[in-house]
Amino acid sequence: MATARLWSDEEAAAEPRVKAVFDDIRATRGNPFVNNFWRGLANQPAVLERTWASLKVVMAGGALDALTKEMIYIAVSTANGCGYCVHSHTAAARAKGMTDAQHGELLAVIGMAAKTNALVTAMQVPVDPEFQVGTGSERRGG
Amino acid sequence: MATARLWSDEEAAAEPRVKAVFDDIRATRGNPFVNNFWRGLANQPAVLERTWASLKVVMAGGALDALTKEMIYIAVSTANGCGYCVHSHTAAARAKGMTDAQHGELLAVIGMAAKTNALVTAMQVPVDPEFQVGTGSERRGG
Amino acid sequence: MATARLWSDEEAAAEPRVKAVFDDIRATRGNPFVNNFWRGLANQPAVLERTWASLKVVMAGGALDALTKEMIYIAVSTANGCGYCVHSHTAAARAKGMTDAQHGELLAVIGMAAKTNALVTAMQVPVDPEFQVGTGSERRGG
Amino acid sequence: MATARLWSDEEAAAEPRVKAVFDDIRATRGNPFVNNFWRGLANQPAVLERTWASLKVVMAGGALDALTKEMIYIAVSTANGCGYCVHSHTAAARAKGMTDAQHGELLAVIGMAAKTNALVTAMQVPVDPEFQVGTGSERRGG
Amino acid sequence: MATARLWSDEEAAAEPRVKAVFDDIRATRGNPFVNNFWRGLANQPAVLERTWASLKVVMAGGALDALTKEMIYIAVSTANGCGYCVHSHTAAARAKGMTDAQHGELLAVIGMAAKTNALVTAMQVPVDPEFQVGTGSERRGG
Amino acid sequence: MATARLWSDEEAAAEPRVKAVFDDIRATRGNPFVNNFWRGLANQPAVLERTWASLKVVMAGGALDALTKEMIYIAVSTANGCGYCVHSHTAAARAKGMTDAQHGELLAVIGMAAKTNALVTAMQVPVDPEFQVGTGSERRGG
Repeated sequence: MATARLWSDEEAAAEPRVKAVFDDIRATRGNPFVNNFWRGLANQPAVLERTWASLKVVMAGGALDALTKEMIYIAVSTANGCGYCVHSHTAAARAKGMTDAQHGELLAVIGMAAKTNALVTAMQVPVDPEFQVGTGSERRGG
Repeated sequence: MATARLWSDEEAAAEPRVKAVFDDIRATRGNPFVNNFWRGLANQPAVLERTWASLKVVMAGGALDALTKEMIYIAVSTANGCGYCVHSHTAAARAKGMTDAQHGELLAVIGMAAKTNALVTAMQVPVDPEFQVGTGSERRGG
Repeated sequence: MATARLWSDEEAAAEPRVKAVFDDIRATRGNPFVNNFWRGLANQPAVLERTWASLKVVMAGGALDALTKEMIYIAVSTANGCGYCVHSHTAAARAKGMTDAQHGELLAVIGMAAKTNALVTAMQVPVDPEFQVGTGSERRGG
Repeated sequence: MATARLWSDEEAAAEPRVKAVFDDIRATRGNPFVNNFWRGLANQPAVLERTWASLKVVMAGGALDALTKEMIYIAVSTANGCGYCVHSHTAAARAKGMTDAQHGELLAVIGMAAKTNALVTAMQVPVDPEFQVGTGSERRGG
Repeated sequence: MATARLWSDEEAAAEPRVKAVFDDIRATRGNPFVNNFWRGLANQPAVLERTWASLKVVMAGGALDALTKEMIYIAVSTANGCGYCVHSHTAAARAKGMTDAQHGELLAVIGMAAKTNALVTAMQVPVDPEFQVGTGSERRGG
Repeated sequence: MATARLWSDEEAAAEPRVKAVFDDIRATRGNPFVNNFWRGLANQPAVLERTWASLKVVMAGGALDALTKEMIYIAVSTANGCGYCVHSHTAAARAKGMTDAQHGELLAVIGMAAKTNALVTAMQVPVDPEFQVGTGSERRGG
């Protein structure tokens, strides 16, 4: 029950730009499974290409490792209430080695953050001056 | 301009339950600074105690290290739009060693996740069957 | 599985205030289909009446045409994570002539906006002075 | 720094439709203060009229008393991250008799709810069958 | 289709810490039903214990009665888009005596608040000075 | 008070990748003003480049005109509570010709959508079968 058509493997194979991205998803993941998100994006090859290209770069291990990045993704997806994304990225995190203990701690942090975010907002806490230095923001010139 | 009174150090020192928490915050952080969030919670000693106690436990390094937990906190606070929390936890993450490179990668993941969360929701992508196994959810008995 | 009772056509026909609104929905849309949202609101005739009356006025073509308004509705519903609303208003937009190309561009803008919203919030970007003029906000008198 | 012009008392007094609403706000509240929200809505008299008329009806004491309604409004405004609204409705609640003890308990519930909402979403908890009865939703006919 | 395993009654009965919480949930509610949320939290006994303990304290009648607290919970859960939570707490509110009339008024307030929250944010209404006094926030000392 | 350093014009001019983007922003907008968002992104030239490149493509007039796209951006930014973004894109929309009448209608739609989104979520309205056809979603093959 999507609002955009989900492309089947046959349809994808028949469109060069879509085929190229689906092939690269499979090659990168080492796995033939292409999830529904990409099948919906296939309706717009330019968006599909940009999104996959960005995701590959952004999610690769760097100063942060790939598993940490997936856990951050789960956290954002949870706060944004995207159920599909929570499923998808929890599966990805497990595939990248997330243990049940790590998942449990992740959930605890997410819950804690949601709680204090709400308390802060309800109290309209003003930003402490101590938090407003050290970023050079005052150095903006014209 | 908070909606709850922010307790000064003098006021806190005069209330045993509040003093105990503020002292523990200082001892735990190794730093005399107690930020405004705790000063607002001080109006309700029970909530102050519970929140600080939980935060200490949840944010301690375990299966996930303390810095990773702060970055997850930044991610959730961003998605929830809590500006105070973004300031507070970005400062905490830097205090725990977050480099500019790590911060930059964190921002990139947060931005990417927000984008794909929105695309998924706009397309109302159905959860793939492949994501629905492996958690024993079907084992719920009565 | 709603939390409020969904009124059937028979039940609606037996309650004058509800019947009046359902008849007007059908007449306005030129179509006998009354979707579940209105069937849930029927439990409160005053809310049903106010909501339908406002929707008719607000969604009519004016300085913005009716299709543009439906696309804005899809955008808000997506950001708010309301799946039912995304389905309902995407169907409405298609009924008002939205093409697949328009839908695709709408999705791309929604995704882009979600991403930059998140990056801005994570960086706590201060509002540029250039954005703070031209609305007469300083003219508030007492 | 609003994005819409905020009408001063002089400007409001010169526009009959706006004057009528501002006068009624003052009469209803028993107080000459008209807050900025209404001054921004004044740019669209129809929206101003509809919003004020609805608010008067919806917020009047009924099956729920007026103070309870203001506290619900604070809760929604907090979850939606609207700082202005939190300020405005907290002031309104205090004007309607909310005590510090009530405010404290309200905050605790808001924080708790935010936390469990997040935990539920992160775990993608399926709705228990026990929650799916008793609303007659299955009685929807055609 | 949860992302965390949902513990059955048999599994819960075999783990002392989990059994203790499930027994207390049943005793407190006077009802053998333990909903899925707790079954997912069971994977982390410490989080399960803390969450249940807090919920009991926070949701007990005090300056606000227990039913008012459930309605606030419904309001927050709605704004946060947590469908499971809306179901769960609407059922809890009904169990605590919420009438259809009260539920209807609650929905009307939630809808009104969501609307004005959005209008305020779109207009970026500045906080009135009148809202910035009376909380002693300026009394923060060092 | 940003959490990331905001690059001045001098700093930007000294970094080729950043200079290139700032020059293109100025050329594309026909205006020397580069707003703070880009100055914060400058810390990560790759993210700056990707974001600007995407924005240029996504926001150009196509099946939807450029002004319609800015209004959609305002709508998403409002729902996501990003004040900076609301300011920035309202200014952009005005620069692209948005009249006060159009702005007023946009606000009315945003407010209406927020309200019905909330009512739907509070009632947990099930998606009508009529909304589940016509997208070929059932055509997903393997």
